[in-house]
Amino acid sequence: MCGVFGVYGHPEAAKLTYLGLHALQHRGQESAGVVSSDGGRLYARRAMGLVHDAFSSEDLRGLPGALAIGHVRYSTAGGSFLKNAQPLAVDYSRGSIAVAHNGNLTNAEELRDLLEARGSIFQSNSDTEVIIHLLAMSKQKALEDRIADALTEVKGSYSLVFLSEQALVAVRDPNAIRPLVLGKLPGSAFPNVVASEPVAFDLIDAEVVREVLPGEMIVIDKNGLHSSSPLPPGPRRSCVFEYVYFARPDSKISGATVYEVRKNLGRILAEEQPADCDIVVPVPDSGVAAAMGFAERAGVPFELGLTRSPYVGRTFIEPEQSIRHFGVRLKLNTVGDTLRGKRVALIDDTIVRGTTSRKIVKLVRNAGAKEVHMRISSPPFRWPCYYGIDTPTRGELVASSHTTEEIGRHITADSLGYLSIDGMVDAVTRSPGFDGKRGEFCHACFSGEYSIDITAPSKSRQLPLLLV
Amino acid sequence: MCGVFGVYGHPEAAKLTYLGLHALQHRGQESAGVVSSDGGRLYARRAMGLVHDAFSSEDLRGLPGALAIGHVRYSTAGGSFLKNAQPLAVDYSRGSIAVAHNGNLTNAEELRDLLEARGSIFQSNSDTEVIIHLLAMSKQKALEDRIADALTEVKGSYSLVFLSEQALVAVRDPNAIRPLVLGKLPGSAFPNVVASEPVAFDLIDAEVVREVLPGEMIVIDKNGLHSSSPLPPGPRRSCVFEYVYFARPDSKISGATVYEVRKNLGRILAEEQPADCDIVVPVPDSGVAAAMGFAERAGVPFELGLTRSPYVGRTFIEPEQSIRHFGVRLKLNTVGDTLRGKRVALIDDTIVRGTTSRKIVKLVRNAGAKEVHMRISSPPFRWPCYYGIDTPTRGELVASSHTTEEIGRHITADSLGYLSIDGMVDAVTRSPGFDGKRGEFCHACFSGEYSIDITAPSKSRQLPLLLV
Amino acid sequence: MCGVFGVYGHPEAAKLTYLGLHALQHRGQESAGVVSSDGGRLYARRAMGLVHDAFSSEDLRGLPGALAIGHVRYSTAGGSFLKNAQPLAVDYSRGSIAVAHNGNLTNAEELRDLLEARGSIFQSNSDTEVIIHLLAMSKQKALEDRIADALTEVKGSYSLVFLSEQALVAVRDPNAIRPLVLGKLPGSAFPNVVASEPVAFDLIDAEVVREVLPGEMIVIDKNGLHSSSPLPPGPRRSCVFEYVYFARPDSKISGATVYEVRKNLGRILAEEQPADCDIVVPVPDSGVAAAMGFAERAGVPFELGLTRSPYVGRTFIEPEQSIRHFGVRLKLNTVGDTLRGKRVALIDDTIVRGTTSRKIVKLVRNAGAKEVHMRISSPPFRWPCYYGIDTPTRGELVASSHTTEEIGRHITADSLGYLSIDGMVDAVTRSPGFDGKRGEFCHACFSGEYSIDITAPSKSRQLPLLLV
Amino acid sequence: MCGVFGVYGHPEAAKLTYLGLHALQHRGQESAGVVSSDGGRLYARRAMGLVHDAFSSEDLRGLPGALAIGHVRYSTAGGSFLKNAQPLAVDYSRGSIAVAHNGNLTNAEELRDLLEARGSIFQSNSDTEVIIHLLAMSKQKALEDRIADALTEVKGSYSLVFLSEQALVAVRDPNAIRPLVLGKLPGSAFPNVVASEPVAFDLIDAEVVREVLPGEMIVIDKNGLHSSSPLPPGPRRSCVFEYVYFARPDSKISGATVYEVRKNLGRILAEEQPADCDIVVPVPDSGVAAAMGFAERAGVPFELGLTRSPYVGRTFIEPEQSIRHFGVRLKLNTVGDTLRGKRVALIDDTIVRGTTSRKIVKLVRNAGAKEVHMRISSPPFRWPCYYGIDTPTRGELVASSHTTEEIGRHITADSLGYLSIDGMVDAVTRSPGFDGKRGEFCHACFSGEYSIDITAPSKSRQLPLLLV
Repeated sequence: MCGVFGVYGHPEAAKLTYLGLHALQHRGQESAGVVSSDGGRLYARRAMGLVHDAFSSEDLRGLPGALAIGHVRYSTAGGSFLKNAQPLAVDYSRGSIAVAHNGNLTNAEELRDLLEARGSIFQSNSDTEVIIHLLAMSKQKALEDRIADALTEVKGSYSLVFLSEQALVAVRDPNAIRPLVLGKLPGSAFPNVVASEPVAFDLIDAEVVREVLPGEMIVIDKNGLHSSSPLPPGPRRSCVFEYVYFARPDSKISGATVYEVRKNLGRILAEEQPADCDIVVPVPDSGVAAAMGFAERAGVPFELGLTRSPYVGRTFIEPEQSIRHFGVRLKLNTVGDTLRGKRVALIDDTIVRGTTSRKIVKLVRNAGAKEVHMRISSPPFRWPCYYGIDTPTRGELVASSHTTEEIGRHITADSLGYLSIDGMVDAVTRSPGFDGKRGEFCHACFSGEYSIDITAPSKSRQLPLLLV
Repeated sequence: MCGVFGVYGHPEAAKLTYLGLHALQHRGQESAGVVSSDGGRLYARRAMGLVHDAFSSEDLRGLPGALAIGHVRYSTAGGSFLKNAQPLAVDYSRGSIAVAHNGNLTNAEELRDLLEARGSIFQSNSDTEVIIHLLAMSKQKALEDRIADALTEVKGSYSLVFLSEQALVAVRDPNAIRPLVLGKLPGSAFPNVVASEPVAFDLIDAEVVREVLPGEMIVIDKNGLHSSSPLPPGPRRSCVFEYVYFARPDSKISGATVYEVRKNLGRILAEEQPADCDIVVPVPDSGVAAAMGFAERAGVPFELGLTRSPYVGRTFIEPEQSIRHFGVRLKLNTVGDTLRGKRVALIDDTIVRGTTSRKIVKLVRNAGAKEVHMRISSPPFRWPCYYGIDTPTRGELVASSHTTEEIGRHITADSLGYLSIDGMVDAVTRSPGFDGKRGEFCHACFSGEYSIDITAPSKSRQLPLLLV
Repeated sequence: MCGVFGVYGHPEAAKLTYLGLHALQHRGQESAGVVSSDGGRLYARRAMGLVHDAFSSEDLRGLPGALAIGHVRYSTAGGSFLKNAQPLAVDYSRGSIAVAHNGNLTNAEELRDLLEARGSIFQSNSDTEVIIHLLAMSKQKALEDRIADALTEVKGSYSLVFLSEQALVAVRDPNAIRPLVLGKLPGSAFPNVVASEPVAFDLIDAEVVREVLPGEMIVIDKNGLHSSSPLPPGPRRSCVFEYVYFARPDSKISGATVYEVRKNLGRILAEEQPADCDIVVPVPDSGVAAAMGFAERAGVPFELGLTRSPYVGRTFIEPEQSIRHFGVRLKLNTVGDTLRGKRVALIDDTIVRGTTSRKIVKLVRNAGAKEVHMRISSPPFRWPCYYGIDTPTRGELVASSHTTEEIGRHITADSLGYLSIDGMVDAVTRSPGFDGKRGEFCHACFSGEYSIDITAPSKSRQLPLLLV
Repeated sequence: MCGVFGVYGHPEAAKLTYLGLHALQHRGQESAGVVSSDGGRLYARRAMGLVHDAFSSEDLRGLPGALAIGHVRYSTAGGSFLKNAQPLAVDYSRGSIAVAHNGNLTNAEELRDLLEARGSIFQSNSDTEVIIHLLAMSKQKALEDRIADALTEVKGSYSLVFLSEQALVAVRDPNAIRPLVLGKLPGSAFPNVVASEPVAFDLIDAEVVREVLPGEMIVIDKNGLHSSSPLPPGPRRSCVFEYVYFARPDSKISGATVYEVRKNLGRILAEEQPADCDIVVPVPDSGVAAAMGFAERAGVPFELGLTRSPYVGRTFIEPEQSIRHFGVRLKLNTVGDTLRGKRVALIDDTIVRGTTSRKIVKLVRNAGAKEVHMRISSPPFRWPCYYGIDTPTRGELVASSHTTEEIGRHITADSLGYLSIDGMVDAVTRSPGFDGKRGEFCHACFSGEYSIDITAPSKSRQLPLLLV
């Protein structure tokens, strides 16, 4: 779960990248990085934390040139270290190259073993470093051919943005799993920005041109934009979870506004899993739009019965004498008497482990709710994602080993209902503006139908080197 | 605009204060401070920034004892310096004393001149330092008598929490302008926590006992709680703006939940200022509840057509080649096609200078809205507040020199409507649970009827000493 | 043990102060502060650490104006907190005032009790705050008269530099215990800089004019320099320890260069306490000059048999499995075979507790020295200093309860010899350039003859308020 | 100019390394790094700044295991970035490997071009990364064979310490240009520490065993110590500049204590280049020992007429209105009247560009010296070093294009004298304990006789990638 951005041909390329990354901040808060080029060499800066904190004016002045790419990275379980921050940037035989990657390679470990056997050395545990090595070893001359060479060997999901001294290259995997969209700055003769989501364009006055196609490579340089398809386009399998949870509500994916899709998810959920309730209450912030749709379809009042603190950081100091619902209460609070005596339909987007849902249900009940009916605007989350979303193992996913009824009891809800896979897909395809097709989604995390043939996703070997 | 907190008789008093301040964080993000007592001496720490960042585990270990008070401070125009952070803590003839203050003294400058003429020295520009000086000069022996002596001399608004080596004292001004509420931790034989808003109790499992009364002084020490009324209770004039904007929606004031009051404000606004519209859209986050009420009463769909970034820091680096709506877009974005072709009723809580409203209206129109009808869930904001809310001067308040029609034109709205003062007060008094009286509000910022007789609020002299 | 600096009438007053403080850095490494005035108001910055680290270019730009004073503070046992950093700066009835103090008031506690009884509040534990309170309470109009009023009440040692909006004032106590010297910047029509030591002038191209006299007050403002003697000059009792240890070797005090005095101390020590030795080795850095004098007079080779690490910070992380001589070895190391088989005269300036000397003697012996004869270039250190040098209590001073023979045994030296008080005074008075008189020194730490009649130096009360 | 350290088989290996690096701090203050192994994996931490500041207790706890290596790095002109900090640590086919390097490869660029042509990617501009790539590409199985393979290809100087999961390996180049010494911790059955200088052993109670031999490889693992000579030992050419300037005076190299050698340099200088003078004054700190030898041989008093500030950081803020001798005076000051009226022999270790010497001579003359005779305890510095000492280009070395007489005029000295190459070598070989041979030194920087056949040392290509 990351965000990427690239711009070509703007005198303040690094600043635009910084702003684009700010708009993509929800895709990753652990680290941020920008690499720029002045036509002759690359300049790089990566830092931990939010984009806003990671770059000072002086930092941006140190990133000159009219080309730049950037990356925001999500915090993953494995530990958060600067060496894993992107874009990666190295020197190789043809000069310098930088890359920002959203996605996950499923054969990274095999490739890494092969590369090491040929003498390669690795400085990070990122699968992205594999791509760079393959690119450097290609016998091709042209950058685009080297990239194509490298990507022919990798499997998995990738929305990639490369930067050389003189060109910007964007590539999307043949299944188009992770999003990537092309835009144009005002005054540019050709499209010259790429980003994970179109919200990155809104902030910098760029307009959306189109999505990057499955298996497409776009090269932007002094000759303008050149599109090619060096990789055989597979069947499109775009991640449906972007609609459910991950993308910003104001983003459009395949023509459909995420906010509208989420309301649809709620409407269909109300039809599939009705609840005898007095009010519909979302778990903020991600459940709000679905709850609005649910309430509308159910004809029951929508109430903001839970508030979410905007000030929650990563860790909080807890008193030794423990406090009830401490963890969840730092983030959520119930609103006065809004819930008292009510039968509440509580709307959330997913249940992962079940522990948080259990705490929230208790919190709502403590606030006086008579009944709590949990409704989830997606199907049971049963399978890990191998394509770039950081999910727990199967063992930790409560829905992979428990029935809906069992989960309902565990979280102490009076009833629990999930949306069906069909309902979820309907919610997307029936949204205004949607221009894709019904079968074009990856919903492996719900269905187990992995888009890419993976015999057995290689297990991450224990990280041999730990930078502290 | 600040938040105060105090606790007596808990082995982890500083940690509870830290958590209470976190719950009050919306009342001030500039600085945070905690002073604790172990019965023998005081321990203090103040720092710039959010509570979460200002205190490490080690910092909290350095604040031992069973008594503590805390303060969060809002960023004011005058400059943000650590020396203005609270609680203030000093030594005087009877030992040590610390104080946290929410409010504003209207005769601070006169008193400061008097005190300096008697030889006092001042180390901050805070009016709170005046209270400490008066207290130190009192001829009384007992702390509560010294405090009463001091407060007899001051005018203005104050919700104060004092800490001595062995006692916690809370006082509210005779007009009860700023909020202050009393609570009880589980297991305590008597009420032993005070806070600006009851949400601070939610987080630490304390229950609300009652509000501190106008002019009441509450002393909590080893003898338990002792209430007295050393100050003649004036007519109650609690700040109505707490409901409109300042308090958290999940807080209760005078029995009424802020969220419910805001929905009422929206409902009455829909009656007083109807709009011919297709959708009702709030300016997030503060306009959301009012927009829900407006939509319900108007029978028009409620839509989240604007999103708000949770990642906005204080300053952002802008490209030199400027971007349209740059400032407002860092914070707000329009949602896909939700607004396209629509007649939009846009709901906000206040218009201060008009510049932001103008930008938002343009943003909404750029997103395709056919008409934009601005509706404000409070009356025109015409007068500065002298009682603790940091407002611009009259000259900067657009409503003090322009008619509603002029403001509407200025912000380029198709129409503009404000709630009436009566409507606003009705919204509060008709809210479920409200246990106060109609005439008990200060609405000077809307009406110019200042609760306290102020001939001419003394002008702040230019700060003579600037700590950098 | 602190350093003070002041400058009047230079467009970059704060920068000169910053440089002056750098030259005085040896007088205090704990904190540094500068207060400047632009003629209308004061600007202040204080920070922990070295001058070089405490002030950025931006910090100095925030300190505008042509007048400035500064202070460096020594780390004292009581704890190192920013609130104790100087200059102190406050507002009072006549405007703003800042003060930097080197010295110690012996009746600070009594005065503080009196002031608090009159209603004063204290924000630090510094005796300097007492002076500010007295000044603020004076009935006089003119600043110099207020300062005189205040100083009439205090006892002890003080070299003070005050800054008001428009004037710089320097005062030295009637006994002239701590140093204070007057200088002139090139191009100035009158003397316009003051500093604890003349080395502060060297760096900024200023020339030494003369020392500030006992009890003298110097006011520098737009009318030039005005000297007065508002305090009855007592008998001069300048601290002899400045020569022995504290001042920089390149400083001149009373006409005598400290380096030359230290060589003299060594010469007379060689006469009074000869040692049968092959080489003379100093404990670096402070024993070097004395060892040179000792070697010259004894006719024995001078050898740098011990080196001192320039990289020693305050605390070092020690392995759990402890290392011999760990603490002293981080700082000192023996030089190869230089000491092997030799009878060594080891020269140091003082023995305080004896623990470090013991470690050094062992280190030297481990390096192969056949005999170690410790010679100290000052008399036994028996009495605490009440005049501004941070010394241990009598109980901790090994010489206050042990004979020289006992100390010698304790530190495992083959012999130990101290300089006599007469010898020490001779070393100063016979130095080239010395223009003072024999009887003008305070050597209370050696003799117990306290310069100022102190019945019983008031004990510091336990600090009531601790800022963390 | 760097320092390396390694330890095997101590439960607190990282802490010992931290202490060892502290003792080697004079060899590099820009960055510090430690890599440890717990037998199964490596742990690494690198940071900018001094060892003391770069490592907290917590950092050291994050470096577990009984094996560790460390590195301190000198600030070089090219820019100081963390990515150039060492030890370098990577993963390759056989596991993980880390390396710390003191020295410089003269064919790094050629090798890098070859490696990149084979597909290698580079993440730093360090020549050390070349060694790691060669090692990773070796077809050998055993680590020592891979290292030997790699080193067969490189030319130049290197004292290397490698760390794998289970072994410590130390290698010195066939000419033994940079120092490397073997030691033994108390209680160890075999030698188990290596360091650039023996002073690193003093601090941790280890004893010196012997120097690592030209071309020797030492492997220390669970089988104890194993020495081999995989590289043909060339003629020994140890850097004579370590004696002149770089090493610590308390270090021993080839049996001779550096301090004793420096006194010898001064003695022979006095014979070769006598001066008609009243006093001999060193430029501190590096000229002190030579000045002592000079004074002794010349029969003229030795005087510390210049002091050096221990508080000088990298950059200082200068007033706009410039100050005479500003830069040099921040560091050096003259001592009172010591120099007044005197004919001064001023002793320094080298003249590089001549600018600093010129400033010092003027400073001395301003302090009243009648004549200034500059004497340098090494020959004219005419040639750049390609073996690990960071020297300016030939064009910047004043002695490569000017006669001694011209330089003397340039620095405004009354006379200037350099030591001869023979005199310098004599000073070393005649020092007590020296156990090497006359012809075994590299003095290319003085003579141009480069120890290793270098046709034309490859020019550093412009760094393509800049990390900011």
